Amino acid sequence: MNIINLKRKNLKNPLETFVEWLEPDIFKINQSIIDNLAGSESLISDLTSHIINSGGKRIRPLLTIACSKLCKYTGNRHITLASIIEFIHTATLLHDDVVDNSNKRRGRSSANFIWDNKSSILVGDFLLSKAFRMLIDDGSINCLNIISKASVKISRGEVKQLVSIKKLHTKESEYLDIIDHKTAELFSAACQIGGEISEVSSEKKSSLAEFGTFLGIAYQIIDDTLDYFSNCKTIGKNTGNDLKEGKMSLPLIICFKRCNKKEKKIIEFIISKDTSNQSDFNKVIELMNKYNVKADCIKKAKHFSIMAKDSLGTFSDSQEKEKMINLADFLTERTK
Amino acid sequence: MNIINLKRKNLKNPLETFVEWLEPDIFKINQSIIDNLAGSESLISDLTSHIINSGGKRIRPLLTIACSKLCKYTGNRHITLASIIEFIHTATLLHDDVVDNSNKRRGRSSANFIWDNKSSILVGDFLLSKAFRMLIDDGSINCLNIISKASVKISRGEVKQLVSIKKLHTKESEYLDIIDHKTAELFSAACQIGGEISEVSSEKKSSLAEFGTFLGIAYQIIDDTLDYFSNCKTIGKNTGNDLKEGKMSLPLIICFKRCNKKEKKIIEFIISKDTSNQSDFNKVIELMNKYNVKADCIKKAKHFSIMAKDSLGTFSDSQEKEKMINLADFLTERTK
Repeated sequence: MNIINLKRKNLKNPLETFVEWLEPDIFKINQSIIDNLAGSESLISDLTSHIINSGGKRIRPLLTIACSKLCKYTGNRHITLASIIEFIHTATLLHDDVVDNSNKRRGRSSANFIWDNKSSILVGDFLLSKAFRMLIDDGSINCLNIISKASVKISRGEVKQLVSIKKLHTKESEYLDIIDHKTAELFSAACQIGGEISEVSSEKKSSLAEFGTFLGIAYQIIDDTLDYFSNCKTIGKNTGNDLKEGKMSLPLIICFKRCNKKEKKIIEFIISKDTSNQSDFNKVIELMNKYNVKADCIKKAKHFSIMAKDSLGTFSDSQEKEKMINLADFLTERTK
Repeated sequence: MNIINLKRKNLKNPLETFVEWLEPDIFKINQSIIDNLAGSESLISDLTSHIINSGGKRIRPLLTIACSKLCKYTGNRHITLASIIEFIHTATLLHDDVVDNSNKRRGRSSANFIWDNKSSILVGDFLLSKAFRMLIDDGSINCLNIISKASVKISRGEVKQLVSIKKLHTKESEYLDIIDHKTAELFSAACQIGGEISEVSSEKKSSLAEFGTFLGIAYQIIDDTLDYFSNCKTIGKNTGNDLKEGKMSLPLIICFKRCNKKEKKIIEFIISKDTSNQSDFNKVIELMNKYNVKADCIKKAKHFSIMAKDSLGTFSDSQEKEKMINLADFLTERTK
């Protein structure tokens, strides 16, 4: 787990509290992952372990566990389903790193950098297929429906993002549609299945779906903002990657909209280059600072975070609900 | 469709007969593919259409249709299921071309060459996810089981193949295991589901599974043999690709085993190079000719083709069975 250094000693942040709360289940998820990789080729388990153990926050599987606890679920299926969510997410990360030509993830070398693109593609395919196998073994047609819909939506989101590369006139609504597909849908599915396996009303199930969607959007906006306003040590991946790739994320969309003609030309020139350098990045940051982009992105993320929290209104107050609300706040305030 | 030029006019080869027999269903499969791509991003439909319409033999979906006809199936599910098989196969092809760094497929530029690797990876992911969605909508847990098992096995086969690259001491049994995973499993699944949707005995269903497996192995051995003993015009992809990639296919395994010490050194040197050239290829062909590799590979393929045909022994004689037997013969005798 990625534990943030606290300024005040002995005070846990909401993510730490969240992780501590779910710790026994996290161990079980890890065991389920190991069990489900057993017997496969060592390249598969090595590469999967590398990415899963590389200090990610593992928000998605934890959301499945947390939502099942919020719904007072008492069985064991949440463990397998959380592992399935982790497998699908890991498959996406493996393919993402190849598509983005990334050499770092969470401060460590990315799998495609240590192994190669070929291995990342094929192991990603294995994990996606394996996730469906595990889902079928779990036996719930509803969970199959939720996750398979998410899987199609994620891949469409990735395609939408690819198509929008370097298109400086991408609208904010198009950006929101992309992150709804590529990120929020899996957050939503992770939450939904926590409710699906529990005996709760369909109203509560759809609240969980909504909570996941809004939280996912807030999370991705912060991720995209940190790609400009963080440093490698903190965020653990290459800051400025999105600019280099010409990815039309929220900070760039807002910044470009607010620039005057001359400034627009500068950004157009930087984006048109095959690869931008540090000085290009600094220039863009300068413009973003001029137009208050960072603060406005965070405001927008907070707007979605509030919507996420409000979605939980159908649930009566409980310790579980409080922890989820604190998590939503924390994820929007995070600096890595 | 890839139609072979016949030496004798007006005489159809078994593949043509097969295609003619299934033509009305082929149109329906095409329509199902179009319907299932509707509403998705144009990159997805363009790239999928490119690969599906590029003159492949489309053996796998046709096997589903043929097997359902052999089992006297009268419904419509075979069309969707054949499209699902085509989607899974297309996803594999898209990722294969990236992994193999191929620039040609079936005589045309490959998708990753026309578009790029990124598009091929992401559209492949979409097709795989979409296939599962369509399967869930079809509603048969047995078909889901068959195809999801195949999907895991295919990805494991691809990983196994990747791991064996340039390992000249790869055993023939390891090669057979690889092609059983990466090729024969989908042939088998395609055949099985033709039986699964029909009301036939479990004995017949398992015969169809066996038919598909053996036919797939025979098919892949011929494919790998043609990679050495064909030319670009005939096979429609780059002859000699397997050698360049250091792929341990049957011809190379047999050849290396039969070579003397000095010849082994030559092959070791060629394989150790980053990329082999035409003269390297010619040298290997020379050794293969010396050791009768082509004929022996074909003999081995025929052995599996015979086993495939024998698997159909559980079915009484019929026109459908005859066409399938003729197809098995033809696929083993093909020159492209």
